[in-house]
Amino acid sequence: MKAIHTRGGKALVVGITGAPGAGKSTLTNKITCELVARRKSVGVVSIDPSSPFLGGALLGDRIRMSEVSNLDGVFVRSMATRGALGGLSQTTSDIVKIMDAFGKDIVLIETVGVGQDEVDVINAADIVLVVCVPGMGDGIQAIKAGIMEIANIFVVNKADREDADQVVVDIQTMLDMSSHSDSQKTPIFKTVALTGDGVNDLVDSLLDDFKSSRKKSEALEERVKEEIYCLVEKEVARHIRAKLNKNGKFETVVKEVISRQRDPYSVVEDMVVDLINP
Amino acid sequence: MKAIHTRGGKALVVGITGAPGAGKSTLTNKITCELVARRKSVGVVSIDPSSPFLGGALLGDRIRMSEVSNLDGVFVRSMATRGALGGLSQTTSDIVKIMDAFGKDIVLIETVGVGQDEVDVINAADIVLVVCVPGMGDGIQAIKAGIMEIANIFVVNKADREDADQVVVDIQTMLDMSSHSDSQKTPIFKTVALTGDGVNDLVDSLLDDFKSSRKKSEALEERVKEEIYCLVEKEVARHIRAKLNKNGKFETVVKEVISRQRDPYSVVEDMVVDLINP
Repeated sequence: MKAIHTRGGKALVVGITGAPGAGKSTLTNKITCELVARRKSVGVVSIDPSSPFLGGALLGDRIRMSEVSNLDGVFVRSMATRGALGGLSQTTSDIVKIMDAFGKDIVLIETVGVGQDEVDVINAADIVLVVCVPGMGDGIQAIKAGIMEIANIFVVNKADREDADQVVVDIQTMLDMSSHSDSQKTPIFKTVALTGDGVNDLVDSLLDDFKSSRKKSEALEERVKEEIYCLVEKEVARHIRAKLNKNGKFETVVKEVISRQRDPYSVVEDMVVDLINP
Repeated sequence: MKAIHTRGGKALVVGITGAPGAGKSTLTNKITCELVARRKSVGVVSIDPSSPFLGGALLGDRIRMSEVSNLDGVFVRSMATRGALGGLSQTTSDIVKIMDAFGKDIVLIETVGVGQDEVDVINAADIVLVVCVPGMGDGIQAIKAGIMEIANIFVVNKADREDADQVVVDIQTMLDMSSHSDSQKTPIFKTVALTGDGVNDLVDSLLDDFKSSRKKSEALEERVKEEIYCLVEKEVARHIRAKLNKNGKFETVVKEVISRQRDPYSVVEDMVVDLINP
Protein backbone atom coordinates (compact mmCIF):
# COMPACT_ATOMS: atom_id res chain seq x y z
CA MET A 1 0.00 0.00 0.00
CA LYS A 2 2.91 2.33 0.72
CA ALA A 3 4.47 1.58 -2.65
CA ILE A 4 1.39 2.37 -4.71
CA HIS A 5 0.45 5.59 -2.91
CA THR A 6 2.27 7.86 -5.36
CA ARG A 7 0.44 6.27 -8.27
CA GLY A 8 -3.05 6.93 -6.92
CA GLY A 9 -5.48 9.81 -6.69
CA LYS A 10 -6.59 9.83 -10.31
CA ALA A 11 -9.72 7.69 -10.32
CA LEU A 12 -13.21 9.01 -9.70
CA VAL A 13 -14.71 6.93 -6.89
CA VAL A 14 -18.49 6.55 -7.08
CA GLY A 15 -20.48 5.00 -4.24
CA ILE A 16 -23.80 3.41 -5.20
CA THR A 17 -26.16 2.64 -2.34
CA GLY A 18 -29.85 2.07 -1.65
CA ALA A 19 -32.31 -0.38 -0.18
CA PRO A 20 -32.16 -4.10 -1.05
CA GLY A 21 -34.14 -4.69 -4.22
CA ALA A 22 -33.61 -1.18 -5.58
CA GLY A 23 -31.71 -2.64 -8.52
CA LYS A 24 -28.25 -1.42 -7.51
CA SER A 25 -26.44 -4.35 -9.13
CA THR A 26 -28.28 -4.02 -12.43
CA LEU A 27 -27.68 -0.29 -12.42
CA THR A 28 -23.98 -0.74 -11.59
CA ASN A 29 -23.78 -3.20 -14.46
CA LYS A 30 -25.39 -0.79 -16.92
CA ILE A 31 -23.27 2.15 -15.77
CA THR A 32 -20.18 0.00 -16.25
CA CYS A 33 -21.21 -0.96 -19.80
CA GLU A 34 -21.88 2.67 -20.66
CA LEU A 35 -18.52 3.79 -19.26
CA VAL A 36 -16.72 1.06 -21.22
CA ALA A 37 -18.55 2.17 -24.38
CA ARG A 38 -17.05 5.58 -23.71
CA ARG A 39 -13.56 4.05 -23.47
CA LYS A 40 -13.21 4.41 -19.71
CA SER A 41 -11.64 1.66 -17.63
CA VAL A 42 -13.75 0.67 -14.64
CA GLY A 43 -13.18 -1.04 -11.30
CA VAL A 44 -16.20 -2.42 -9.44
CA VAL A 45 -16.27 -3.28 -5.73
CA SER A 46 -19.45 -5.05 -4.80
CA ILE A 47 -20.11 -5.35 -1.07
CA ASP A 48 -22.78 -7.74 0.06
CA PRO A 49 -23.01 -7.76 3.84
CA SER A 50 -25.98 -10.03 4.32
CA SER A 51 -25.76 -12.50 1.42
CA PRO A 52 -25.31 -15.34 0.85
CA PHE A 53 -27.27 -16.07 4.00
CA LEU A 54 -30.10 -13.56 3.78
CA GLY A 55 -31.92 -12.82 0.58
CA GLY A 56 -31.32 -14.68 -2.59
CA ALA A 57 -30.05 -12.17 -5.12
CA LEU A 58 -26.42 -13.14 -4.87
CA LEU A 59 -26.29 -15.73 -7.61
CA GLY A 60 -28.05 -13.38 -9.99
CA ASP A 61 -25.66 -10.60 -9.03
CA ARG A 62 -22.65 -12.74 -9.71
CA ILE A 63 -23.99 -13.75 -13.09
CA ARG A 64 -24.69 -10.16 -14.04
CA MET A 65 -21.32 -9.10 -12.70
CA SER A 66 -19.39 -11.87 -14.42
CA GLU A 67 -20.92 -10.69 -17.68
CA VAL A 68 -19.54 -7.21 -17.08
CA SER A 69 -16.20 -8.49 -15.85
CA ASN A 70 -15.54 -9.98 -19.29
CA LEU A 71 -15.50 -6.53 -20.82
CA ASP A 72 -12.15 -4.96 -21.66
CA GLY A 73 -10.81 -2.69 -18.95
CA VAL A 74 -13.22 -3.87 -16.26
CA PHE A 75 -12.16 -5.46 -13.00
CA VAL A 76 -14.75 -6.69 -10.49
CA ARG A 77 -14.12 -7.48 -6.84
CA SER A 78 -17.05 -8.99 -4.98
CA MET A 79 -17.03 -9.14 -1.19
CA ALA A 80 -19.48 -11.21 0.83
CA THR A 81 -18.78 -10.04 4.32
CA ARG A 82 -20.98 -12.57 6.09
CA GLY A 83 -22.14 -10.65 9.10
CA ALA A 84 -18.70 -9.70 10.31
CA LEU A 85 -18.18 -6.21 8.96
CA GLY A 86 -15.26 -5.20 11.16
CA GLY A 87 -12.50 -3.64 9.08
CA LEU A 88 -14.71 -3.45 6.01
CA SER A 89 -14.08 0.22 5.41
CA GLN A 90 -10.30 -0.22 5.62
CA THR A 91 -10.32 -3.25 3.30
CA THR A 92 -12.58 -1.54 0.79
CA SER A 93 -10.49 1.60 0.90
CA ASP A 94 -7.38 -0.47 0.15
CA ILE A 95 -9.05 -2.24 -2.79
CA VAL A 96 -10.21 1.09 -4.21
CA LYS A 97 -6.69 2.47 -3.90
CA ILE A 98 -5.24 -0.55 -5.68
CA MET A 99 -7.73 -0.18 -8.55
CA ASP A 100 -6.94 3.54 -8.66
CA ALA A 101 -3.19 2.92 -8.74
CA PHE A 102 -3.71 0.29 -11.41
CA GLY A 103 -5.08 3.03 -13.62
CA LYS A 104 -8.85 2.61 -13.49
CA ASP A 105 -10.57 5.83 -14.53
CA ILE A 106 -13.63 5.15 -12.44
CA VAL A 107 -14.18 2.91 -9.43
CA LEU A 108 -17.76 1.99 -8.53
CA ILE A 109 -18.52 0.79 -4.99
CA GLU A 110 -21.89 -0.89 -4.69
CA THR A 111 -23.33 -1.58 -1.26
CA VAL A 112 -26.55 -1.80 0.73
CA GLY A 113 -26.63 1.15 3.07
CA VAL A 114 -26.77 -0.57 6.45
CA GLY A 115 -24.39 -0.12 9.33
CA GLN A 116 -21.72 2.34 10.32
CA ASP A 117 -18.99 0.52 8.42
CA GLU A 118 -20.94 0.83 5.19
CA VAL A 119 -21.67 4.47 5.75
CA ASP A 120 -17.91 4.95 6.19
CA VAL A 121 -17.27 3.14 2.91
CA ILE A 122 -19.73 5.30 1.06
CA ASN A 123 -18.46 8.47 2.71
CA ALA A 124 -15.04 7.76 1.24
CA ALA A 125 -16.40 8.02 -2.33
CA ASP A 126 -16.07 11.20 -4.41
CA ILE A 127 -19.70 10.99 -5.46
CA VAL A 128 -22.53 9.07 -3.82
CA LEU A 129 -25.53 7.82 -5.81
CA VAL A 130 -28.54 6.91 -3.71
CA VAL A 131 -30.87 4.58 -5.58
CA CYS A 132 -34.58 4.75 -4.73
CA VAL A 133 -37.48 2.81 -6.21
CA PRO A 134 -41.21 3.30 -6.34
CA GLY A 135 -43.38 0.98 -4.33
CA MET A 136 -41.28 0.64 -1.20
CA GLY A 137 -43.83 2.17 1.13
CA ASP A 138 -44.24 5.91 0.87
CA GLY A 139 -41.64 7.31 -1.46
CA ILE A 140 -40.09 9.49 1.15
CA GLN A 141 -39.84 6.66 3.67
CA ALA A 142 -37.87 4.62 1.17
CA ILE A 143 -34.93 6.89 1.75
CA LYS A 144 -32.90 6.09 4.75
CA ALA A 145 -31.98 8.80 7.19
CA GLY A 146 -28.24 9.22 7.35
CA ILE A 147 -27.91 8.08 3.74
CA MET A 148 -29.94 11.02 2.49
CA GLU A 149 -27.46 13.55 3.80
CA ILE A 150 -24.57 11.99 1.91
CA ALA A 151 -26.31 11.72 -1.49
CA ASN A 152 -24.73 13.75 -4.28
CA ILE A 153 -27.06 12.28 -6.91
CA PHE A 154 -30.43 10.60 -6.48
CA VAL A 155 -31.50 7.91 -8.92
CA VAL A 156 -35.10 6.78 -9.09
CA ASN A 157 -34.73 3.35 -10.62
CA LYS A 158 -37.54 1.21 -12.07
CA ALA A 159 -38.83 4.53 -13.37
CA ASP A 160 -41.22 2.79 -15.77
CA ARG A 161 -43.50 2.11 -12.80
CA GLU A 162 -46.42 4.46 -12.62
CA ASP A 163 -45.61 5.94 -9.20
CA ALA A 164 -42.02 6.85 -10.15
CA ASP A 165 -42.83 10.52 -10.65
CA GLN A 166 -44.29 10.69 -7.18
CA VAL A 167 -40.98 9.42 -5.77
CA VAL A 168 -39.14 12.16 -7.69
CA VAL A 169 -41.54 14.76 -6.25
CA ASP A 170 -41.07 13.34 -2.75
CA ILE A 171 -37.28 13.47 -3.01
CA GLN A 172 -37.40 16.98 -4.44
CA THR A 173 -39.65 18.13 -1.60
CA MET A 174 -37.30 16.61 0.90
CA LEU A 175 -34.29 18.28 -0.73
CA ASP A 176 -36.08 21.64 -0.78
CA MET A 177 -36.75 21.32 2.93
CA SER A 178 -33.17 20.39 3.68
CA SER A 179 -31.05 22.73 5.74
CA HIS A 180 -27.98 21.90 3.63
CA SER A 181 -27.78 24.51 0.89
CA ASP A 182 -25.95 21.97 -1.28
CA SER A 183 -28.84 19.52 -1.04
CA GLN A 184 -31.08 21.81 -3.02
CA LYS A 185 -28.82 21.38 -6.05
CA THR A 186 -28.70 17.59 -5.78
CA PRO A 187 -29.81 16.20 -9.18
CA ILE A 188 -32.42 13.46 -9.47
CA PHE A 189 -32.20 11.01 -12.39
CA LYS A 190 -34.78 8.50 -13.53
CA THR A 191 -33.52 5.16 -14.83
CA VAL A 192 -34.79 1.76 -15.84
CA ALA A 193 -31.66 -0.26 -15.15
CA LEU A 194 -33.10 -3.39 -16.74
CA THR A 195 -33.40 -1.75 -20.17
CA GLY A 196 -30.70 0.87 -19.66
CA ASP A 197 -33.11 3.80 -20.06
CA GLY A 198 -31.75 6.98 -18.50
CA VAL A 199 -28.29 5.52 -17.80
CA ASN A 200 -26.78 7.68 -20.53
CA ASP A 201 -27.74 10.94 -18.83
CA LEU A 202 -26.60 9.62 -15.48
CA VAL A 203 -23.18 8.73 -16.88
CA ASP A 204 -22.93 12.18 -18.51
CA SER A 205 -23.41 13.70 -15.10
CA LEU A 206 -20.81 11.39 -13.53
CA LEU A 207 -18.25 12.29 -16.16
CA ASP A 208 -18.94 15.99 -15.66
CA ASP A 209 -18.19 15.44 -12.01
CA PHE A 210 -15.05 13.62 -13.10
CA LYS A 211 -13.74 16.87 -14.49
CA SER A 212 -14.86 19.06 -11.61
CA SER A 213 -14.22 16.64 -8.76
CA ARG A 214 -10.67 17.85 -8.16
CA LYS A 215 -12.14 21.02 -6.71
CA LYS A 216 -13.43 19.42 -3.54
CA SER A 217 -10.17 19.86 -1.66
CA GLU A 218 -11.82 20.53 1.68
CA ALA A 219 -13.68 17.25 1.66
CA LEU A 220 -10.50 15.50 0.55
CA GLU A 221 -8.58 16.95 3.47
CA GLU A 222 -11.24 15.74 5.90
CA ARG A 223 -11.15 12.31 4.33
CA VAL A 224 -7.37 11.98 4.56
CA LYS A 225 -7.45 13.19 8.16
CA GLU A 226 -10.11 10.62 8.98
CA GLU A 227 -8.07 7.89 7.33
CA ILE A 228 -4.98 8.80 9.31
CA TYR A 229 -6.98 8.96 12.56
CA CYS A 230 -8.40 5.49 11.88
CA LEU A 231 -5.05 3.96 11.00
CA VAL A 232 -3.46 5.50 14.10
CA GLU A 233 -6.30 4.31 16.31
CA LYS A 234 -6.06 0.79 14.92
CA GLU A 235 -2.30 0.66 15.49
CA VAL A 236 -2.52 2.14 18.96
CA ALA A 237 -5.35 -0.25 19.87
CA ARG A 238 -3.12 -3.16 18.90
CA HIS A 239 -0.33 -1.83 21.11
CA ILE A 240 -2.73 -1.27 24.00
CA ARG A 241 -4.04 -4.83 23.89
CA ALA A 242 -0.53 -6.24 23.77
CA LYS A 243 0.59 -3.98 26.61
CA LEU A 244 -2.40 -4.78 28.84
CA ASN A 245 -2.05 -8.50 28.22
CA LYS A 246 1.61 -8.43 29.22
CA ASN A 247 0.73 -6.58 32.39
CA GLY A 248 0.01 -9.05 35.19
CA LYS A 249 -2.13 -6.48 36.99
CA PHE A 250 -4.71 -6.58 34.18
CA GLU A 251 -5.98 -10.03 35.19
CA THR A 252 -6.38 -8.83 38.78
CA VAL A 253 -8.29 -5.76 37.67
CA VAL A 254 -10.62 -7.88 35.52
CA LYS A 255 -11.37 -10.11 38.52
CA GLU A 256 -12.06 -7.06 40.67
CA VAL A 257 -14.54 -5.78 38.09
CA ILE A 258 -16.27 -9.16 37.90
CA SER A 259 -16.57 -9.38 41.68
CA ARG A 260 -17.93 -5.81 41.58
CA GLN A 261 -15.19 -4.44 43.87
CA ARG A 262 -14.30 -1.95 41.15
CA ASP A 263 -16.23 -0.58 38.20
CA PRO A 264 -14.81 -0.69 34.66
CA TYR A 265 -15.12 3.07 34.16
CA SER A 266 -12.79 4.04 37.00
CA VAL A 267 -10.44 1.24 35.98
CA VAL A 268 -10.29 2.63 32.46
CA GLU A 269 -9.67 6.17 33.70
CA ASP A 270 -6.61 4.96 35.61
CA MET A 271 -5.37 2.92 32.67
CA VAL A 272 -5.72 5.77 30.20
CA VAL A 273 -3.72 8.09 32.46
CA ASP A 274 -0.97 5.47 32.52
CA LEU A 275 -1.09 4.99 28.75
CA ILE A 276 -1.17 8.64 27.79
CA ASN A 277 1.46 9.81 30.28
CA PRO A 278 3.58 6.77 31.10
CA MET B 1 -22.53 4.06 35.37
CA LYS B 2 -19.81 3.93 38.02
CA ALA B 3 -22.35 4.29 40.80
CA ILE B 4 -24.59 1.43 39.71
CA HIS B 5 -21.80 -1.05 38.99
CA THR B 6 -21.95 -2.66 42.42
CA ARG B 7 -25.67 -3.26 42.02
CA GLY B 8 -25.39 -5.17 38.77
CA GLY B 9 -24.53 -8.65 37.60
CA LYS B 10 -27.72 -10.37 38.65
CA ALA B 11 -29.87 -10.30 35.51
CA LEU B 12 -29.83 -12.96 32.82
CA VAL B 13 -29.19 -11.19 29.51
CA VAL B 14 -30.77 -12.91 26.51
CA GLY B 15 -29.98 -11.82 22.95
CA ILE B 16 -32.65 -12.57 20.34
CA THR B 17 -31.57 -12.29 16.73
CA GLY B 18 -32.52 -13.53 13.27
CA ALA B 19 -33.46 -12.39 9.80
CA PRO B 20 -36.02 -9.63 9.26
CA GLY B 21 -39.49 -11.15 9.18
CA ALA B 22 -38.55 -14.10 11.38
CA GLY B 23 -41.00 -12.88 14.01
CA LYS B 24 -38.45 -11.75 16.59
CA SER B 25 -40.66 -8.97 17.97
CA THR B 26 -43.68 -11.22 18.36
CA LEU B 27 -41.52 -13.89 19.99
CA THR B 28 -39.91 -11.36 22.33
CA ASN B 29 -43.39 -10.19 23.23
CA LYS B 30 -44.58 -13.72 24.02
CA ILE B 31 -41.45 -14.59 26.00
CA THR B 32 -41.95 -11.41 28.03
CA CYS B 33 -45.59 -12.30 28.80
CA GLU B 34 -44.60 -15.81 29.84
CA LEU B 35 -41.81 -14.51 32.10
CA VAL B 36 -44.20 -12.03 33.72
CA ALA B 37 -46.70 -14.85 34.29
CA ARG B 38 -43.91 -16.61 36.17
CA ARG B 39 -43.39 -13.49 38.31
CA LYS B 40 -40.12 -12.40 36.72
CA SER B 41 -39.41 -8.75 36.02
CA VAL B 42 -38.26 -8.12 32.47
CA GLY B 43 -36.33 -5.43 30.61
CA VAL B 44 -36.56 -5.33 26.83
CA VAL B 45 -34.11 -3.52 24.55
CA SER B 46 -35.33 -3.48 20.98
CA ILE B 47 -32.79 -2.39 18.37
CA ASP B 48 -34.04 -1.51 14.92
CA PRO B 49 -31.16 -0.39 12.75
CA SER B 50 -32.96 0.06 9.46
CA SER B 51 -36.44 1.22 10.41
CA PRO B 52 -38.23 3.55 10.17
CA PHE B 53 -36.76 4.07 6.70
CA LEU B 54 -36.57 0.55 5.34
CA GLY B 55 -39.30 -1.99 5.87
CA GLY B 56 -42.56 -1.20 7.47
CA ALA B 57 -42.80 -3.35 10.57
CA LEU B 58 -41.92 -0.63 13.00
CA LEU B 59 -45.36 0.64 13.78
CA GLY B 60 -46.59 -2.88 14.38
CA ASP B 61 -43.59 -3.51 16.61
CA ARG B 62 -44.28 -0.45 18.69
CA ILE B 63 -47.90 -1.44 19.13
CA ARG B 64 -47.00 -4.95 20.18
CA MET B 65 -44.31 -3.63 22.47
CA SER B 66 -46.46 -0.96 24.07
CA GLU B 67 -48.91 -3.72 24.94
CA VAL B 68 -46.16 -5.58 26.77
CA SER B 69 -44.78 -2.44 28.36
CA ASN B 70 -48.05 -1.99 30.24
CA LEU B 71 -47.44 -5.21 32.14
CA ASP B 72 -46.20 -5.00 35.69
CA GLY B 73 -42.45 -5.28 36.03
CA VAL B 74 -41.72 -4.75 32.34
CA PHE B 75 -39.62 -1.91 30.97
CA VAL B 76 -39.15 -1.51 27.21
CA ARG B 77 -36.48 0.60 25.54
CA SER B 78 -36.76 0.84 21.77
CA MET B 79 -33.84 2.16 19.73
CA ALA B 80 -34.17 3.18 16.08
CA THR B 81 -30.57 3.73 15.12
CA ARG B 82 -31.24 5.11 11.65
CA GLY B 83 -28.24 3.92 9.76
CA ALA B 84 -25.66 5.37 12.11
CA LEU B 85 -24.71 2.46 14.32
CA GLY B 86 -21.52 3.86 15.78
CA GLY B 87 -21.42 3.38 19.53
CA LEU B 88 -24.46 1.12 19.49
CA SER B 89 -22.79 -1.65 21.44
CA GLN B 90 -21.62 0.71 24.18
CA THR B 91 -25.03 2.39 24.48
CA THR B 92 -26.85 -0.93 24.55
CA SER B 93 -24.44 -2.34 27.08
CA ASP B 94 -25.09 0.69 29.32
CA ILE B 95 -28.87 0.32 29.00
CA VAL B 96 -28.64 -3.37 29.87
CA LYS B 97 -26.52 -2.55 32.92
CA ILE B 98 -29.05 0.03 34.10
CA MET B 99 -31.90 -2.45 33.74
CA ASP B 100 -29.82 -5.02 35.57
CA ALA B 101 -28.98 -2.61 38.39
CA PHE B 102 -32.64 -1.62 38.57
CA GLY B 103 -33.40 -5.22 39.51
CA LYS B 104 -34.74 -6.78 36.30
CA ASP B 105 -34.46 -10.56 36.50
CA ILE B 106 -34.14 -10.94 32.77
CA VAL B 107 -33.12 -8.50 30.05
CA LEU B 108 -34.06 -9.36 26.47
CA ILE B 109 -32.14 -7.68 23.61
CA GLU B 110 -33.87 -8.00 20.28
CA THR B 111 -31.99 -7.12 17.11
CA VAL B 112 -31.61 -8.00 13.43
CA GLY B 113 -28.23 -9.63 13.04
CA VAL B 114 -26.56 -7.26 10.62
CA GLY B 115 -23.28 -5.45 11.13
CA GLN B 116 -20.34 -5.72 13.47
CA ASP B 117 -21.88 -3.46 16.08
CA GLU B 118 -24.89 -5.74 16.31
CA VAL B 119 -22.78 -8.86 16.57
CA ASP B 120 -20.95 -7.15 19.45
CA VAL B 121 -24.28 -6.42 21.14
CA ILE B 122 -25.40 -9.99 20.84
CA ASN B 123 -22.03 -11.33 21.93
CA ALA B 124 -22.45 -9.47 25.19
CA ALA B 125 -25.55 -11.51 26.10
CA ASP B 126 -25.43 -14.53 28.44
CA ILE B 127 -27.57 -16.57 26.05
CA VAL B 128 -28.19 -15.99 22.35
CA LEU B 129 -31.39 -17.18 20.66
CA VAL B 130 -31.19 -17.35 16.88
CA VAL B 131 -34.64 -17.29 15.32
CA CYS B 132 -35.09 -19.07 11.98
CA VAL B 133 -38.22 -19.47 9.87
CA PRO B 134 -39.30 -21.85 7.13
CA GLY B 135 -39.62 -20.48 3.64
CA MET B 136 -36.67 -18.14 3.52
CA GLY B 137 -34.84 -19.92 0.74
CA ASP B 138 -33.23 -23.20 1.74
CA GLY B 139 -33.48 -23.71 5.45
CA ILE B 140 -29.78 -23.82 5.96
CA GLN B 141 -29.21 -20.66 3.96
CA ALA B 142 -31.61 -18.80 6.20
CA ILE B 143 -29.01 -18.87 8.92
CA LYS B 144 -26.41 -16.24 8.70
CA ALA B 145 -22.78 -17.16 8.97
CA GLY B 146 -21.19 -15.53 11.94
CA ILE B 147 -24.51 -15.59 13.78
CA MET B 148 -24.62 -19.36 13.73
CA GLU B 149 -21.45 -19.70 15.78
CA ILE B 150 -22.81 -17.56 18.60
CA ALA B 151 -26.19 -19.31 18.94
CA ASN B 152 -26.82 -21.01 22.27
CA ILE B 153 -30.41 -21.85 21.39
CA PHE B 154 -32.06 -22.14 17.98
CA VAL B 155 -35.74 -21.29 17.61
CA VAL B 156 -37.65 -22.33 14.50
CA ASN B 157 -40.52 -19.86 14.55
CA LYS B 158 -43.69 -20.07 12.44
CA ALA B 159 -43.41 -23.80 13.11
CA ASP B 160 -46.99 -24.39 11.97
CA ARG B 161 -45.75 -24.10 8.40
CA GLU B 162 -45.32 -27.42 6.70
CA ASP B 163 -41.60 -27.14 5.99
CA ALA B 164 -40.70 -26.27 9.60
CA ASP B 165 -39.44 -29.78 10.34
CA GLN B 166 -37.07 -29.57 7.40
CA VAL B 167 -35.55 -26.42 8.89
CA VAL B 168 -35.05 -28.25 12.19
CA VAL B 169 -33.34 -31.10 10.33
CA ASP B 170 -31.16 -28.64 8.43
CA ILE B 171 -30.06 -26.85 11.59
CA GLN B 172 -29.40 -30.17 13.33
CA THR B 173 -27.29 -31.36 10.39
CA MET B 174 -25.34 -28.15 10.46
CA LEU B 175 -24.78 -28.43 14.21
CA ASP B 176 -23.66 -32.04 13.84
CA MET B 177 -21.10 -30.99 11.27
CA SER B 178 -19.84 -28.15 13.42
CA SER B 179 -16.31 -28.27 14.73
CA HIS B 180 -17.38 -26.67 18.01
CA SER B 181 -18.12 -29.50 20.41
CA ASP B 182 -20.56 -27.22 22.25
CA SER B 183 -22.59 -26.69 19.08
CA GLN B 184 -23.67 -30.29 19.06
CA LYS B 185 -25.54 -29.74 22.30
CA THR B 186 -27.30 -26.57 21.10
CA PRO B 187 -31.05 -27.11 21.60
CA ILE B 188 -33.58 -26.38 18.85
CA PHE B 189 -37.07 -25.22 19.83
CA LYS B 190 -40.13 -24.92 17.63
CA THR B 191 -42.48 -21.99 18.29
CA VAL B 192 -45.47 -20.27 16.77
CA ALA B 193 -44.95 -16.81 18.26
CA LEU B 194 -48.31 -15.56 17.01
CA THR B 195 -50.26 -18.12 19.09
CA GLY B 196 -47.60 -18.64 21.75
CA ASP B 197 -47.17 -22.34 20.97
CA GLY B 198 -43.85 -23.66 22.19
CA VAL B 199 -42.94 -20.51 24.10
CA ASN B 200 -43.48 -22.30 27.41
CA ASP B 201 -40.74 -24.86 26.74
CA LEU B 202 -38.41 -22.18 25.47
CA VAL B 203 -38.87 -20.13 28.66
CA ASP B 204 -38.29 -23.27 30.76
CA SER B 205 -34.96 -23.65 29.04
CA LEU B 206 -34.06 -19.99 29.56
CA LEU B 207 -34.84 -20.18 33.26
CA ASP B 208 -32.77 -23.35 33.58
CA ASP B 209 -29.93 -21.37 32.07
CA PHE B 210 -30.69 -18.62 34.56
CA LYS B 211 -29.68 -20.99 37.34
CA SER B 212 -26.64 -22.41 35.61
CA SER B 213 -25.43 -19.27 33.88
CA ARG B 214 -23.19 -18.23 36.75
CA LYS B 215 -20.88 -21.08 35.80
CA LYS B 216 -19.67 -19.45 32.61
CA SER B 217 -16.90 -17.52 34.32
CA GLU B 218 -14.45 -17.89 31.46
CA ALA B 219 -16.80 -16.23 28.98
CA LEU B 220 -17.53 -13.53 31.54
CA GLU B 221 -13.83 -12.81 31.96
CA GLU B 222 -13.42 -12.47 28.19
CA ARG B 223 -16.41 -10.16 28.03
CA VAL B 224 -15.15 -7.88 30.81
CA LYS B 225 -11.71 -7.77 29.19
CA GLU B 226 -13.27 -6.84 25.86
CA GLU B 227 -15.32 -4.12 27.52
CA ILE B 228 -12.26 -2.65 29.19
CA TYR B 229 -10.28 -2.79 25.92
CA CYS B 230 -13.07 -0.99 24.09
CA LEU B 231 -13.45 1.70 26.74
CA VAL B 232 -9.70 2.25 26.81
CA GLU B 233 -9.51 2.42 23.02
CA LYS B 234 -12.35 4.92 22.87
CA GLU B 235 -10.73 7.13 25.51
CA VAL B 236 -7.29 6.91 23.92
CA ALA B 237 -8.76 7.64 20.47
CA ARG B 238 -10.30 10.80 21.88
CA HIS B 239 -6.94 11.88 23.30
CA ILE B 240 -5.18 11.07 20.03
CA ARG B 241 -7.54 13.19 17.97
CA ALA B 242 -7.21 16.10 20.36
CA LYS B 243 -3.42 15.75 20.42
CA LEU B 244 -3.10 15.53 16.63
CA ASN B 245 -5.39 18.50 16.10
CA LYS B 246 -3.35 20.64 18.48
CA ASN B 247 -0.17 19.68 16.64
CA GLY B 248 0.49 22.14 13.82
CA LYS B 249 2.52 19.52 11.96
CA PHE B 250 -0.60 17.41 11.37
CA GLU B 251 -2.01 19.81 8.79
CA THR B 252 1.31 19.76 6.93
CA VAL B 253 1.40 15.96 6.96
CA VAL B 254 -2.17 15.78 5.61
CA LYS B 255 -1.19 18.10 2.76
CA GLU B 256 1.86 15.96 2.00
CA VAL B 257 -0.35 12.86 1.81
CA ILE B 258 -2.82 14.62 -0.50
CA SER B 259 -0.04 15.80 -2.80
CA ARG B 260 1.30 12.20 -2.73
CA GLN B 261 4.70 13.24 -1.35
CA ARG B 262 4.15 10.87 1.56
CA ASP B 263 1.89 7.87 2.02
CA PRO B 264 -0.49 7.61 4.99
CA TYR B 265 0.95 4.30 6.16
CA SER B 266 4.47 5.62 6.78
CA VAL B 267 3.00 8.75 8.32
CA VAL B 268 1.00 6.63 10.74
CA GLU B 269 4.01 4.50 11.66
CA ASP B 270 5.90 7.63 12.69
CA MET B 271 2.93 9.00 14.60
CA VAL B 272 2.35 5.79 16.52
CA VAL B 273 6.00 5.66 17.62
CA ASP B 274 5.58 9.20 18.96
CA LEU B 275 2.32 8.37 20.70
CA ILE B 276 3.41 5.10 22.28
CA ASN B 277 6.83 6.33 23.42
CA PRO B 278 6.56 10.09 23.70
